[in-house]
Amino acid sequence: MKIAVVQFNPIVGDIAGNARRILKIAQEASAKGADLAVFPELCMVGYSHHDLLDNDYVVTSIEVATTWIHEHLPHDIAIILGTVRRNPSPHGKRLFNSAAFLESGKPARFVDKMLLPTYDLYDEYRYFEPAKSQTPIKFKGLKLGIHICEDMWNLEKYASYLVYERNPLSELIEKGAQVLINLSASPFSHGRHDLRTELIQDICAQHRVPFLMANQVGANTEMVFDGDSRVHAANGDLLCQAPSFEETVLYWNTFDQRPIAAPTHDRIQDIFDALVCGIREYDRKSGIFNKHLIGLSGGIDSAVTAALAVEAVGAHRVMGITMPSEYSSEGSVSDSHSLAHNLGIPCHTLPIRGAITSFKDMLAPLFDGTKEGLAEENIQARTRGLALMAVSNKFGHLLLSTGNKSEMAMGYATLYGDMAGGLAVLADVFKTDVYLLAEFINQRAGRALIPVSSIEKPPSAELRPDQRDQDSLPPYPVLDEILRLYIEERGDVFSICDQLGHEEDFVRDILSVVDRNEFKRKQAGPGLRVSKKAFGTGRRMPLVMKMDRFALEQLKQELNVEANA
Amino acid sequence: MKIAVVQFNPIVGDIAGNARRILKIAQEASAKGADLAVFPELCMVGYSHHDLLDNDYVVTSIEVATTWIHEHLPHDIAIILGTVRRNPSPHGKRLFNSAAFLESGKPARFVDKMLLPTYDLYDEYRYFEPAKSQTPIKFKGLKLGIHICEDMWNLEKYASYLVYERNPLSELIEKGAQVLINLSASPFSHGRHDLRTELIQDICAQHRVPFLMANQVGANTEMVFDGDSRVHAANGDLLCQAPSFEETVLYWNTFDQRPIAAPTHDRIQDIFDALVCGIREYDRKSGIFNKHLIGLSGGIDSAVTAALAVEAVGAHRVMGITMPSEYSSEGSVSDSHSLAHNLGIPCHTLPIRGAITSFKDMLAPLFDGTKEGLAEENIQARTRGLALMAVSNKFGHLLLSTGNKSEMAMGYATLYGDMAGGLAVLADVFKTDVYLLAEFINQRAGRALIPVSSIEKPPSAELRPDQRDQDSLPPYPVLDEILRLYIEERGDVFSICDQLGHEEDFVRDILSVVDRNEFKRKQAGPGLRVSKKAFGTGRRMPLVMKMDRFALEQLKQELNVEANA
Repeated sequence: MKIAVVQFNPIVGDIAGNARRILKIAQEASAKGADLAVFPELCMVGYSHHDLLDNDYVVTSIEVATTWIHEHLPHDIAIILGTVRRNPSPHGKRLFNSAAFLESGKPARFVDKMLLPTYDLYDEYRYFEPAKSQTPIKFKGLKLGIHICEDMWNLEKYASYLVYERNPLSELIEKGAQVLINLSASPFSHGRHDLRTELIQDICAQHRVPFLMANQVGANTEMVFDGDSRVHAANGDLLCQAPSFEETVLYWNTFDQRPIAAPTHDRIQDIFDALVCGIREYDRKSGIFNKHLIGLSGGIDSAVTAALAVEAVGAHRVMGITMPSEYSSEGSVSDSHSLAHNLGIPCHTLPIRGAITSFKDMLAPLFDGTKEGLAEENIQARTRGLALMAVSNKFGHLLLSTGNKSEMAMGYATLYGDMAGGLAVLADVFKTDVYLLAEFINQRAGRALIPVSSIEKPPSAELRPDQRDQDSLPPYPVLDEILRLYIEERGDVFSICDQLGHEEDFVRDILSVVDRNEFKRKQAGPGLRVSKKAFGTGRRMPLVMKMDRFALEQLKQELNVEANA
Repeated sequence: MKIAVVQFNPIVGDIAGNARRILKIAQEASAKGADLAVFPELCMVGYSHHDLLDNDYVVTSIEVATTWIHEHLPHDIAIILGTVRRNPSPHGKRLFNSAAFLESGKPARFVDKMLLPTYDLYDEYRYFEPAKSQTPIKFKGLKLGIHICEDMWNLEKYASYLVYERNPLSELIEKGAQVLINLSASPFSHGRHDLRTELIQDICAQHRVPFLMANQVGANTEMVFDGDSRVHAANGDLLCQAPSFEETVLYWNTFDQRPIAAPTHDRIQDIFDALVCGIREYDRKSGIFNKHLIGLSGGIDSAVTAALAVEAVGAHRVMGITMPSEYSSEGSVSDSHSLAHNLGIPCHTLPIRGAITSFKDMLAPLFDGTKEGLAEENIQARTRGLALMAVSNKFGHLLLSTGNKSEMAMGYATLYGDMAGGLAVLADVFKTDVYLLAEFINQRAGRALIPVSSIEKPPSAELRPDQRDQDSLPPYPVLDEILRLYIEERGDVFSICDQLGHEEDFVRDILSVVDRNEFKRKQAGPGLRVSKKAFGTGRRMPLVMKMDRFALEQLKQELNVEANA
């Protein structure tokens, strides 16, 4: 049997457009002799659909499109399609997250998803009822163990904080499944590729059947999908694999058991590719932007953002603007121009001093007698934000914001100022990784696309004389490791101090700053997710709250005193 | 038996502070002769805790605080306390949403929540494992049917899109429960009070036992809680009820069966009270703001916002700023000053023309040859936003944004301009209701606090000469009804046209505008929720998407043609 594994790139909500493309791919696969084509999870509506599925019109449209494809399907191919199915029971959620098995002239058959991720970015229990059971579907003498995404992720080793009672794969195998077919919408995060390989090889070792995964690819707002679709033999060997971040169709003949070498993955290259994909797809799927606009500060964040944008949409569609103030170093302007020159993009200079002076004059009667400080620094940052948004509005450009994850964590950024923008490219990349990205970009180009001085100078917001990030923040290598343990590993004061050996007060203060700046992140533009825990949809923190770690220790002490008394 | 029903107002995350207050209230209740005190759902950590519960440190702290209260409890009172309990099973979510029954010197007993709301604002399946069964707890000869919030909301009549298979109340009654005790964190939305009464009376009619509800009160960021705690007799009669939006302790003696008259509720008064509560609590729980700052335009939205702020925190803590531009009418300045005079707040004038001119000069080389339009209008709105934020930063004031739900829906607002602010007071109030709020405020004051001319003049953003909202938008009564059906009732083109008799193209265009403006709402400040479906946490829509309703109709037609062929 020849199986087409379709690494498909849907546009969220574009049910009609997705359906037409799905049918076209099925027709092409049929022309190439495939007996079966496997499409990803929920590919008709695109992941993540979010609350589109609360709307009955959308559900009806998905049903219509599924029927439309079914009716137009060539006679010599069957397809497995990620779609939704209405729950016929009067109880429970209205929908199943479902795989439709469609053959021309025969009734549709469905397999529903059993394990519904409801953590991080995922809200599946919000929409879907879990399947009570799953049964293989017989096709041309082969029992297909069809299942959806999370259904394969039920081992403690891979999801330590989320262990399901049911094991859909074992149930399918017990019912005679001869091949496991996984429809996924599994997003990228760095390191996930290797985790998938390890998991699939464990599954093959346990069940001794081939494993096939068709994953969504591309990006939808903050979620980036590398794809990573593949086929493994019953012994776990990798037989074929799709290129990352590209829509592709893999063809696998079930007789073919020749292993291929697995491509190696580099963490920084993966992040680079994911960010480029994220920018490109945001641009393409929005379909309304002329160019991409970046405020160039001469620093490393805006330089890396610009280089990524050029890679994503081409130099002819990227535009830099430099906006020196009285505190800008000579280097910040010349580095911006060097960068623009290297990247082949225009760099316009907008002199913001006049506007800043106007604001200060306007506010002088109210501010009379106060000391210059944060308010004045923010006026500078917001004047830049306003100027960039004016250019964005005038010419239909997308403003890319350039703040990194370390800054977003610490609130070391100005709301409506440098945080302004439609897409926050580096929001999930720690500053220490921004340096590695810069080095990667220069190595890849074989020359210093990003000026060495942008990389080597001490980071500064340049909002007051001789300002340095390090005046307000710990050194980034120290800070980033604390932030990583807090945000990505869900650690807290004591566990972080245990691991890193810092003083409790030092760590406690950093975590409090992170907590306090939730109000800024609430109003940030969407950020491209490349780690397993990004700010945004996947991390939902209260905004008005009080997490007083000293008061909690006091309570604990009182308890111990009592307990020991 | 004397029962204290505690309508408690927790601060989210302030576990130590909440615990100390809980113990104090329990001690006071004991001193007043109560045998039992009932506290709301999850009151130790506050609703909604969001992902705080992903952090083991937080869970441990809740456990410590629960033990601390237990150890310090007076000997003559038992308490029922909303807390969390770790799931001892290696499978499933790590926690239960639990009610702890605590008596001095006896082991704690727990009843876990069975029905976990995972829709709208609620993400409970993200954190909690549902209870497999519930059993009454015997106390002083009485079998208490303790259950938590959603456990009572399992009738199709009240939750048409979410019907549970289990009915915890029936299970408790079958096991002999003689009184139903509900611990809630059930937020306000207009009309919900009457719905609760109807539901509880239905429950009493079915089970013939008294019903007692202890609900959280106050507000946490966007969620406002009216409280509405009460006791109903076995025949459904209301026996006692807490005042809305206030922390209170109700005392009920189980022998007392005298009904009281239920207070009447007016929709607009309820919304007024909820918004005042929302502002007051945001201010109090943040604890960092000196004053509340409002940009006064002379229009009705900023006038209503200012009046609400004065009611919430007092005139001495509210400050208005008017920022006329060349397009501002004479009336907009004089109306702002009249309003400020009526409310007893200062109104500073900031002349923004100079700053706007500076921006235009700065951008002139880039904008040369282009036509004045949206970009220039946004410069005005953002200049105002920048000036307001500068004052906010300088003096530690909270900027309240004033946009209403109709504008937020249609994107009729400038990101980083009039959308700037820490709290969006009217974001869940349609324009037609803003008018009713203005009338209510004036009636309540017995005089025109809000100038009649602000109410009567045609709405305008005043960003270009003779601009009127109605040039770009349908009349608000028409628009709001369409928006309400789309957003709150989950309707779509056809169902809305069926109900209102509009042309399909007209409605389709409006819904597309709503969809397209998700990117603005993504970056909006938190808005106070007063309807059953607000923008924000409870409505999660894709940002980059394509919902082409014409293409979908085309698909449907092709299908019908085929089907009929």
